[in-house]
Amino acid sequence: MDIDWDGVTHVTKVDPVKALPSGLSMLEATDLVVVGGSDGVTESNTLETIRSLEDACPATPILQEPYSSAHVSKTTIERVDGVAVPAVYNGDRTHFVGKQVDLFAEIGRQPDALLGSSLPVVGDYLASKGEEVVTQLTSKLVGEGYVVQHVDATAASVAGVETAYSPKQVAGAALATETFYGFPIFYIEYSGTYGGPDDVEAAARYLEETTLFYGGGIDSQAKATEILAAGADAIVVGDCFHDDPDRFRETIPR
Amino acid sequence: MDIDWDGVTHVTKVDPVKALPSGLSMLEATDLVVVGGSDGVTESNTLETIRSLEDACPATPILQEPYSSAHVSKTTIERVDGVAVPAVYNGDRTHFVGKQVDLFAEIGRQPDALLGSSLPVVGDYLASKGEEVVTQLTSKLVGEGYVVQHVDATAASVAGVETAYSPKQVAGAALATETFYGFPIFYIEYSGTYGGPDDVEAAARYLEETTLFYGGGIDSQAKATEILAAGADAIVVGDCFHDDPDRFRETIPR
Repeated sequence: MDIDWDGVTHVTKVDPVKALPSGLSMLEATDLVVVGGSDGVTESNTLETIRSLEDACPATPILQEPYSSAHVSKTTIERVDGVAVPAVYNGDRTHFVGKQVDLFAEIGRQPDALLGSSLPVVGDYLASKGEEVVTQLTSKLVGEGYVVQHVDATAASVAGVETAYSPKQVAGAALATETFYGFPIFYIEYSGTYGGPDDVEAAARYLEETTLFYGGGIDSQAKATEILAAGADAIVVGDCFHDDPDRFRETIPR
Repeated sequence: MDIDWDGVTHVTKVDPVKALPSGLSMLEATDLVVVGGSDGVTESNTLETIRSLEDACPATPILQEPYSSAHVSKTTIERVDGVAVPAVYNGDRTHFVGKQVDLFAEIGRQPDALLGSSLPVVGDYLASKGEEVVTQLTSKLVGEGYVVQHVDATAASVAGVETAYSPKQVAGAALATETFYGFPIFYIEYSGTYGGPDDVEAAARYLEETTLFYGGGIDSQAKATEILAAGADAIVVGDCFHDDPDRFRETIPR
């Protein structure tokens, strides 16, 4: 299914390495599930998680957010509704443009291997078929312009983030996303800690077409409400989904 | 005027530091003039060049390509049809995302100073007016995804380019431009030397919405034809415009 970004208010982030809680049908109330993590994630545990989610809540769209292209395969691509490609504004060069160009160079070079086409054709027809396959694949990719604001988090060290942005820099990155880089999602990530509404307010002022995600430390209705009131289009809830389903349910807007 | 990218085949790059040749009306035959350079460029000589061009060929659109935001002012923005904001794929972090976020943060912070508005209003109205001014300005900005392939050129050292991309990497950057970063222009820059058709062929395969520019060493009809036949939407001619107007005229497609 195509993801209707305008209808996404509550996002659940599921780490394939962590155990899924019982009562997965609670995910029918979330608007999008993002599957991804860093340490210990593999294609295999990603697929296992995707299958469990499909069984429990078949109507909820799934976005895979791979850390490495090794977690992406023909099978994951076919099973999910989108594959997120993050670009970290306040990270190092590798995590804003380096890995991304490598990924697209790889896609351009190996459309058959990536999507499993093995047509016995050569020359121009293969070239043209290759481009169709590339188009199918890239149409599933979802660019996310990230600002990682909790510099002690794993996400920060992985992406080469040494300094958090000021709210004015967050606003600049938001305006750049909306008018220059054109990612459909601008993502303010506090990863495990609650960052409050300031960055969200700064960014929301300049975002119209772009969907604004906030993630980090949301474990109550009050925090969920505060971030949405500050202008976020959607809140992303991760830790308490795995750790405390009762608190998780509280974060879902009614 | 809005620039009609589909109609742009021949682009002339004018350096404000160099003397303009006589017979400027030859620019009526080019589809776009880009005004920019690095060493010695100022807002003042940029404006002087823009004025001379407006007098000589009022129907030809002008794109300012500033190296520094000090070359941009309310006056230059109002006089030109677009302001280019390059992002260099194979440059350092500063020249793909650092300067760009700084620029957009500055625009978000100082809309009044940038566009000279001095309305005696406060509070919400100013905020809302500020956003309109920002929208006016950002609508004039034109993102250019650059690959700088002549590593000995000034453009390369300025942008922190240490290594030229292989044709496969050029293809990756092109595909990333088309499907991920969304810049309207992908620019292969050989800056003073002729790079031949290989990179252009590699990039053109993945570009549909994006306009493909090639610049560098074009000083004859044969080279112009070779690059356009390889799939470039437009050739950019600079040096011989200033140095050898007869050769320059030869580069204009009939």
